[in-house]
Amino acid sequence: MIVDDEFEMNSRFVVKPEIRLLGVDDSFLSGEEVLVVGTIFRGGEWLDGVVRTTITRDGMNATERLSRMVRETRHYRQLRAILLDGITFAGFNVVDIERLCHETGLPVIAIMRRVPDFEKIRRALTYLSDGEERWELILRAGRIVRVVTREPDRPIHIQFTGLREEDAVQIVRLSSTRSSIPEPLRAAHLIATGIACGESKRRS
Amino acid sequence: MIVDDEFEMNSRFVVKPEIRLLGVDDSFLSGEEVLVVGTIFRGGEWLDGVVRTTITRDGMNATERLSRMVRETRHYRQLRAILLDGITFAGFNVVDIERLCHETGLPVIAIMRRVPDFEKIRRALTYLSDGEERWELILRAGRIVRVVTREPDRPIHIQFTGLREEDAVQIVRLSSTRSSIPEPLRAAHLIATGIACGESKRRS
Repeated sequence: MIVDDEFEMNSRFVVKPEIRLLGVDDSFLSGEEVLVVGTIFRGGEWLDGVVRTTITRDGMNATERLSRMVRETRHYRQLRAILLDGITFAGFNVVDIERLCHETGLPVIAIMRRVPDFEKIRRALTYLSDGEERWELILRAGRIVRVVTREPDRPIHIQFTGLREEDAVQIVRLSSTRSSIPEPLRAAHLIATGIACGESKRRS
Repeated sequence: MIVDDEFEMNSRFVVKPEIRLLGVDDSFLSGEEVLVVGTIFRGGEWLDGVVRTTITRDGMNATERLSRMVRETRHYRQLRAILLDGITFAGFNVVDIERLCHETGLPVIAIMRRVPDFEKIRRALTYLSDGEERWELILRAGRIVRVVTREPDRPIHIQFTGLREEDAVQIVRLSSTRSSIPEPLRAAHLIATGIACGESKRRS
């Protein structure tokens, strides 16, 4: 990262307690088109809006659909960062977080409860069309950083782009008000599974 | 209300800050079956789950569908009260709040931003089948009480059954943490309209 970029980000980016965040999660695989829910939150406290889209199971349209969902919401100009539940949705529809960041002008932080088994993913991808391209997107999501949030014994892991590590860590910690993961993601999960299944499901 | 009833309610009913509430609202009329969303909240603070059902536009099945949704959720045993956004859903599908209370064993509180224009409703009902029955249900919802919650200049109005007025008022005030209406209802509205329309809508 060059110094100019870092300066620009630094001067632009202030993490206030009520920073507007978009949290994105998908529901279960129940058909070809999978429901994806976005929650607009003020920090980790307050649900301010709900958006949704669909993406194709094992398709290649996650980045495009999420980018459009973000740019089309009336909350767009208030948003300061996008939080994703990992970078693969609806099976192996992989999000290009750099492209999502570039197209929306917003930093992107992907949250994982545990470090993925990359060897297993790579093997699974060989059975899908565009396996190499999907693998490239996974590699491009960048290094994985361990973060302790609300529960010291349940650290999470993040990948991020468009902001500095210290800002990404601050956003994740600030918004993890009720559990070890950011509240916008916890709510998006409850809503997506509740709507798709009739009742929200706890994480496995 | 006889003294024994009152004593039973009183001895059973304690309003704790984290009292589990179910807030129910519908989405816009977009077809014959209208999405209805229930949010399970801890007081006015914390989304704990999401359930959904559908009810028929201008149908007669709101009470039955809501009753089943409540009894089937895994949160049922934790719930202490049901909050409804008014008593008519999906057009003129009227909820029998006494029957809902009886079938679920839970107090029911219906919240209105303003006192309905009953004469207008009565005239509208003459154009629907079962108009007299719908009107009876509206009358059975009981007297309307004005409550000042978070915003002194925006009082709301409630109808209730299965609990004492002072408990109903306490629950409504306790859970109106972000606006003049209980947070479970504000969130249910954002989710129902967000899912049905792609983006949540503010109240008119």
